[in-house]
Parts: sequence; structure tokens; C-alpha cells
Amino acid sequence: MRMYDVIMKKRNGGELSKEEICFFVNGYTVGEIPDYQVSALMMAIYFRGMTEKETYELTMAMAHSGDILDLSRIQGIKVDKHSTGGVGDKTSLALTPMVAACGIPVAKMSGRGLGHTGGTIDKLESFPGFSTSLSTEQFIENINRIGIAIMGQTADLAPADKKLYALRDVTATVDNMSLIASSIMSKKLAAGADAIVLDVKTGSGAFMKKKEDALALAEEMVKIGKNAGRKTIAVISDMDQPLGYAVGNALEVREAIDTLRNEGPEDFVELCLTLGSQMLIAGGKAEDQVNARKMLLEVLENGRALDKLAEFISAQGGDGEVVYHPELLPQASIQKEIAAPSDGYIGHIECDEVGICSLILGGGRETKESEIDLAVGIVLNKKVGDKVSKGETLAILHGNDAKKVAEAEKRYLNACTIVKIPVEKEPMIKKIIGM
Amino acid sequence: MRMYDVIMKKRNGGELSKEEICFFVNGYTVGEIPDYQVSALMMAIYFRGMTEKETYELTMAMAHSGDILDLSRIQGIKVDKHSTGGVGDKTSLALTPMVAACGIPVAKMSGRGLGHTGGTIDKLESFPGFSTSLSTEQFIENINRIGIAIMGQTADLAPADKKLYALRDVTATVDNMSLIASSIMSKKLAAGADAIVLDVKTGSGAFMKKKEDALALAEEMVKIGKNAGRKTIAVISDMDQPLGYAVGNALEVREAIDTLRNEGPEDFVELCLTLGSQMLIAGGKAEDQVNARKMLLEVLENGRALDKLAEFISAQGGDGEVVYHPELLPQASIQKEIAAPSDGYIGHIECDEVGICSLILGGGRETKESEIDLAVGIVLNKKVGDKVSKGETLAILHGNDAKKVAEAEKRYLNACTIVKIPVEKEPMIKKIIGM
Repeated sequence: MRMYDVIMKKRNGGELSKEEICFFVNGYTVGEIPDYQVSALMMAIYFRGMTEKETYELTMAMAHSGDILDLSRIQGIKVDKHSTGGVGDKTSLALTPMVAACGIPVAKMSGRGLGHTGGTIDKLESFPGFSTSLSTEQFIENINRIGIAIMGQTADLAPADKKLYALRDVTATVDNMSLIASSIMSKKLAAGADAIVLDVKTGSGAFMKKKEDALALAEEMVKIGKNAGRKTIAVISDMDQPLGYAVGNALEVREAIDTLRNEGPEDFVELCLTLGSQMLIAGGKAEDQVNARKMLLEVLENGRALDKLAEFISAQGGDGEVVYHPELLPQASIQKEIAAPSDGYIGHIECDEVGICSLILGGGRETKESEIDLAVGIVLNKKVGDKVSKGETLAILHGNDAKKVAEAEKRYLNACTIVKIPVEKEPMIKKIIGM
Repeated sequence: MRMYDVIMKKRNGGELSKEEICFFVNGYTVGEIPDYQVSALMMAIYFRGMTEKETYELTMAMAHSGDILDLSRIQGIKVDKHSTGGVGDKTSLALTPMVAACGIPVAKMSGRGLGHTGGTIDKLESFPGFSTSLSTEQFIENINRIGIAIMGQTADLAPADKKLYALRDVTATVDNMSLIASSIMSKKLAAGADAIVLDVKTGSGAFMKKKEDALALAEEMVKIGKNAGRKTIAVISDMDQPLGYAVGNALEVREAIDTLRNEGPEDFVELCLTLGSQMLIAGGKAEDQVNARKMLLEVLENGRALDKLAEFISAQGGDGEVVYHPELLPQASIQKEIAAPSDGYIGHIECDEVGICSLILGGGRETKESEIDLAVGIVLNKKVGDKVSKGETLAILHGNDAKKVAEAEKRYLNACTIVKIPVEKEPMIKKIIGM
């Protein structure tokens, strides 16, 4: 087989066979096929697309390019959750203790944040002493004992995807649905769960700005999951404004704790209940959504979900007591209120810009090597549709540097549009696929 | 400027500016822009195409990536000729002495053959002692003295094209008209002629199998030439069967000599007269085609064209006497007649296959390092449309190895179709563009 012929076939609109896909994925991973041939193929795929079968084979080839986690020693149906990412997305922090408290074993691989969206591991490090450096042994032992563990993503998981993504990133071949879907799903399949619940976000703070793109991506991923024999559900959720009110590592942890105390923001609670219900159903713990929501609300009301978070934090070396005393979380020295410049209604909050405000304050990484300030961020006071009077607080900036706070304030005011006529609130959940 | 943005712009269907084109051509030539980004761009160009302006700017950027020959010390209007290549294409061997004998200075850069089509330099080396290793000084001096000189292509001519072509060759991005046209024209423009006559071949032995593709390529090249301020004419000519009768280095030289003795094959003479007329008109030596053809026929009849070849061969170290004694050219030890297997008419000769017969006999290079046997090849006896009786000679194989001769015979019989009903002969000249 020659890579030239594979490129030519795709360029001319042909369907690549399983053998051809494995040939280029494996050849590229071991360095036998050069970058320049693979980037030409990626561009041909950008223009020609991939069939459902090709997308599935690409995903499987990438999933098998490295280790496949063996979670067979964990009892029960393992349900993984994945979010396409967004601003203020602290879902894992609240959702995983909720479902674990309902008996779903949570075996999670998480990453650190890059750019203006944060990573779960960074957020969890707001708990002093917390660590994700677990051996596979400890990881499995923790899950069997307390029902939840989170591990940093190891380099051996889908290395083909890692290499391919890096190449696509510099050759303008990222935005093709089949390629995005197979990149996400290859990692999820390698991570070994029995069922996968996907949170596909859409709006100004999401990777998929347009709802139809989010829908297309969700459908691609659900198809791959089903073809791979894993129950896969995708929830399309709103990311046209930040999720909840808090953006910033420790600030988001605090909001997650509030949520587990049954005092969470409406939109965020709704998302957790929707995703959690799908996880309980996929994991065989609930028969339907009504039943599942009831179970989830119960563990919020009786404190079992909050206790599960404390247990989990302690099991990974962190100070579990902080869960009950969130005032012990890192706090910024400056808290600056942003005043509304006029009367009206919040018409739009340019969501990516709020993420950038947090980045400016020091809450995110500009490069992989950046140090982050866990305490800083922004807490919104008004969200889209809310009525606001001139001088009222739009949001509070938490910072440790007055100059950066001033810069973030200017930026936030530009990102937030106040209009004269009432604005309807967007529903949090747009659609559920694969039920 | 970032290469990423250049790729993205073209991928999305935008028109690249002169600055963007120069940026990637120069950056790639000096090694600052990596292969994998350029191959992704080439694939995007394959799908999106290039506008006339982009094609021109790409050609100019590549032409200026290395040396531009300065032919200003040569008197008169310099007219260059270029052929897209084919089987039995000995045109330069006969045409250049013809036009030189009519007073057009011929300053030619030629290449060696690779694959099943031969190179002019290889053919000329059939004259013992002939060399193309001339200094630029000698080259110009020879042209001013005898009107003709041929030099091997130096590495400094359009190095960007060389690098880009090598990359396109392994990434399935060769066959785009703008890229092919700019590759050819960048070298022609760098070679410094005032006017360019292009021989664009079409048919089973040509790079452009389809007439409409040949036409499109010719039009692209004529547009580039005009935009660059050089008079440019393209002749679309037939390559659906070998040109003339002879295929193979010394065999083609002999046919060229026959032609200069005014005993050439009809199709080949017609091509030389058509291209030669355009060269004489472009070079200001003739007013129209009637006049030009008359001049060219005159130098064939009075022997001046043949004498010019002898003069040229001698001036570059070769034995000019061989021109008058072609029996001194290298000769093969085996001459094997191929007998017609049935009665009928020659319906088709798969032209590429005839080239491969010559390659099998040792007349071409499989790799750049191959040694070639100048004596071997094939001389056709019947061409498309000719009546043939069973047992009559279809062609004569010239070889030095009986096993290879047997293999070539089998191949030739497969390439040559004999049909029962008469077949019309295709005209040699399909169209002339840019007059």
C-alpha cells in the first residue's frame, strides 16, 4: 500500500477502506508516513468528507493506537461523561459526585485547561493537597471503594489522535465534523467506559458556535459510539453565555459546592440533572428520566452528593473539610464590582470574552507552561434576560492585580450588551440525541 | 503573516494576494515554512483553484526564486520552445536547426529523460563527444556565432518550482491546471527568452490525455506569458500515437536527420513547420504563416538546416560528420520485426505503452541514476489508419538483449489494436492559441 494512493483516492472522492485507514494512522503514529502526506490527506478529507464507516474506522484506529484502559475490575456499568468545553463549565465537579452518590462508578480522565476555557484538574487543585497522579491500581481501587476517581490524561491514550490533532491545528484542517468527532471519540473509547454521555455545547462560548454544527457533531459522535457498541447519548446545551454565574477555578469550585448543597444556579442545576439522568439510565440505575431526576434531587437534598465530593477529594490527598468550609478556598485580594452603565435588559453576553476576562486576571493558561492563579475570575450577577438598572452590579471581578482588574472590567463592559426591550431567556437544553 | 492564515484563506475559497503568495513561495524555498503546511495549501488549491492573477503571481514568485538568465547579450528576439513531452518527441532536434537556419537565435535549456519519455540531452549524446556542459559565456558566444546552443538545466533556475513539484508529486496535488501551468512557465520565464512557443500534447502518450485538459493548460500558460509581457503561443498537437516512426535515442536522432534532409515523416514535418512558423513570426523573421512555412521549407530543401545541426553538434564537442553519415550513430545488435497477427487497419496504438517498450529495451531511465542504451528503441512501420495484412511488419524492435526484445514484442502487440473497418487519421495540429 502507498500513502500516495490513499491521498489520491480520497482526493477523488472515494471511500477509504479499513485497511487504508489503519495503514495511514499506524504509519503516521510510528513516523513511517511523513507529516506532509498526512496534511494533504486531511485537507482532502476536509473537502470530500468521510462516510459513517470511514469515520468509525478512523476512530477505532486512533483508539487502538495506544493503550486501551481495562476497567473490567470495576464493578457495575461504567459511564463516562465528556463536554466539548465552554466558559464556566464546572459540570464534572458537581455532576460526578451526584451520579457516584446514586451508585454509578465514575472513572474519569481529565485534562488541564488551555486558552480561555478551564480544565477540571486545575479547578480541583483549588483543594489544597489534591492530586490526580494516581497509578491505575489506585484509580481502580478508589472507584471500587468510594465510587469515583479522576486521573490526569496519560500520554499513551490515543497517541495517533494527539499527533494528528497537532498537525491539523497548524494546517487549517481542524473544522471537519468527522475529524472532530473521531478525535473526541477515540479518546473516550480508549478510556474504556461502557457508556458515554456527551455534553455538546453551542453558542458564543462554545467550539461549535452554530446550533446546526453542534447537532451535526453530536450525531457523528453518537453514530461512532453505537458502531463501537457503546451506549452513547449526546445532550446539546447552551453556551451562549457562561454556565452558572462563576468563571475562574476556585470560584467555580465554590459554585459546584453550592450546587451540591442544593443551592445552585438554575441553568447549571438543569444541565446537571439532564446529564445525570442520562448517566443513571445508561448505567442501569434508573428506568426513566422522571425516576432519575428524583434520585438526583434526593442526593442533593440529603447531602449525600456533597459528602461524596468530600470523600473523593480526601481519597486523592486533598483537604475534604474544605467542601464544608468553602471560605477556605483560595481567595483574591481585590473584589471589584462592575456597575451597569444604563437601564435595560441584558441582551447578550459575548461568552468567549468572559473567558478572556478570566484569562487576563490570571485564571487561565496562555501557553502550556503558564502558571495559573486559582483565586481569580469573575462572578456574574446578571445574565441574559435579566432586568438591570443603571449603577446596579453586572458582575464582580476577583483579582490580585489592579491593572489587570481594570483591563478585565473594560473588556467585560464591551462583552455585555444592555438593550431596551425585554429579552427571552434561551433554554439550557436544546436537544438530546441517542436516547 | 502566518502560513496558517494563508492556508485557511485558500481553503475557504479566497483569492491570495501577491504578498501572501510571495510569503509562502519564499518561505518554503528557504525552509522557513514546513512541507506539511505547503502540502495542505496545495491540496486546498487543488479543490479551490486559482484565479488568473494568483496563477500569474505564483509563476512570477517561482521564476524569481533563483537566477533569471540574462540573454540581453544575444542579438535578436530570443524565442524559446517548450514541449509538454511525449513518446518519440524529437522535435527540438529538427526544429531548432530549422529556425536557427532562418535567423532565430536558439538559446535552449534542456533536461534529461525520466520514465518512458526521452530527454533532448540524452538524444543529442548519440553524437560521440557531444556535451551540454557549457558556461554561460560559451553558451552566449555560441549563439551569437552560429545561432544555436543547448545547455543542461542548472539547479539555480526556479528552485521554488523544483521543491514544490517534488512535494506535489508525493501528495497527489500535481494535476491542477494553474499549478502545472505556473510550474512550466516559471522555468520558461527564468530562462529569459523574449517569446515562448509551447507545444501542448494531448492523447494516450501525453500528460494531458484529454483534449479539453490540454486546451485548458494551454490557455493558462498563454495567459501567464501575456501577463508577464512575453509573446506566448501554444500549439495543441496530437500524441495519441508516437510522433513520427522512431522511438529511442539514436533512432530518433536519425529520424530528425532524415527530416532535415527533407525526408521526414509527414506528421512530424507538419508539427515542425507549425511550431517553426510561430517561432519565426514571434521572432520577427516572417510576417505570416505562408511566408514562414516557405522559409522553413527552403532551409530543408537547400540543406542549410542540416548544415546548422552539424555546426551546432561540432560547436559543442560532438562529431558533426555523423549528421551526414547517420550510419555512424549507435546501432543495436538485434533488429526484430513484429508481424501483424491479422488483416485490417491500425485502430489505436496505446502511446504510453510504446514508450514503455523502449524503456524495457533499455532506452529510458527508471530512476535518475539509470544508465541508458542509446542504440535501442522501436521503429514503427504502420501507424493509426494504415491498412495492414497478416504477417506484414507492424514495427521493428532494436535491442541488445533477446529476452528484453521478446518482452517488448509482447507488449507492443498488446498496445496495437487492429480493427476491421477503416479508421480516420487524426490531424496533427488540433488548435493554436495566442496568435
